[in-house]
Amino acid sequence: MSPSAPLGRGPKVRSAVLAATVDELSERGYAAFTIENVAQRTGVHKTTVYRRWPDRDTLIAEALADSVAAKIPIPDTGSIEEDLRALARSLVAWATGAAGRAVLAVLVSTAAGLPAPPNSARHVFRDRIRQTLPVVTRAVARGELPEGTDPAETIKALVAPIYFRVLITGEPVDDGTADTAAALALAGARARLFTRNVSGRPESH
Amino acid sequence: MSPSAPLGRGPKVRSAVLAATVDELSERGYAAFTIENVAQRTGVHKTTVYRRWPDRDTLIAEALADSVAAKIPIPDTGSIEEDLRALARSLVAWATGAAGRAVLAVLVSTAAGLPAPPNSARHVFRDRIRQTLPVVTRAVARGELPEGTDPAETIKALVAPIYFRVLITGEPVDDGTADTAAALALAGARARLFTRNVSGRPESH
Repeated sequence: MSPSAPLGRGPKVRSAVLAATVDELSERGYAAFTIENVAQRTGVHKTTVYRRWPDRDTLIAEALADSVAAKIPIPDTGSIEEDLRALARSLVAWATGAAGRAVLAVLVSTAAGLPAPPNSARHVFRDRIRQTLPVVTRAVARGELPEGTDPAETIKALVAPIYFRVLITGEPVDDGTADTAAALALAGARARLFTRNVSGRPESH
Repeated sequence: MSPSAPLGRGPKVRSAVLAATVDELSERGYAAFTIENVAQRTGVHKTTVYRRWPDRDTLIAEALADSVAAKIPIPDTGSIEEDLRALARSLVAWATGAAGRAVLAVLVSTAAGLPAPPNSARHVFRDRIRQTLPVVTRAVARGELPEGTDPAETIKALVAPIYFRVLITGEPVDDGTADTAAALALAGARARLFTRNVSGRPESH
């Protein structure tokens, strides 16, 4: 969109600015991210952007949360096996696209020794994990998983192999990766690896 | 060590330079890493460093490989359960120290949108995974794991939850994290999630 065709206010501006935020992060990373670049990219005056999002971390947090919510829906098929597979597959699709790269760029800035450690992406990430927990608690209620299965540990077991490949080994990830990650999380939950005992601590193995 | 007390050549210089390389990476990250800083830190003249390591990536690769080899030994206890647990525990100890932070800083530079994507850390990482594969192949030979278990997939299932926490969620990792990761990899291998069928592809789930 060219700067000569300025957008008005309202939902169109919002979605254009949020999309441009994701694209900027995905292409340039967090260190080089500026609200000026986002404004230029969308053809919105930067004061319009600042009016709505007072600083770059507020803008980034909203853009990332929006993208995750749209791209990684919370499944409820009635089967834990199906739900975990659906979750893993949408995570793979998201992580390999612009939004996923954007989140990763922000998440790893601290580890890469960059000056301004941002918390927004980590918050978005934790929040999304929290939102997926009913997938596990519903399965426990249906008797598909052992009583006391820790939902967050189960979801993290599913997510970790996918992020590990995207971020560390650089291997391609696909539906096969997703299905194996889902099956591994399910096997771990069924083997009671994520089950808390009465003291609230995970059982020792 | 002060620049006024210059080191000679030989193994002492080598280990001092490699240790300083790890410290520099862990404290400043890859983007700010220079051979000059390493030389100053060890009190070795920079031409001495350059004579042995012509560029920073060569130096980094050697420092990281050295650190991994020293800190993550390959266990051979005769039991896959013990071996995986020992491997996971030394990985946790290493990843939470200066060397682990150094490797992570280099590994994630690309994902963070930094200019010079280094391959050295990724090579070190892949190489170490390759060196641990006998832990799994020996267990298959002993009949502890199913025929056709993919060693690399098994090891990656153990490593992923640990790196995921260190790098993404920022949660503390400890021996409990290690033991759960080892148990999860073992459960996955026993459930044949990492078993290749006759076509050489992982079985579908």
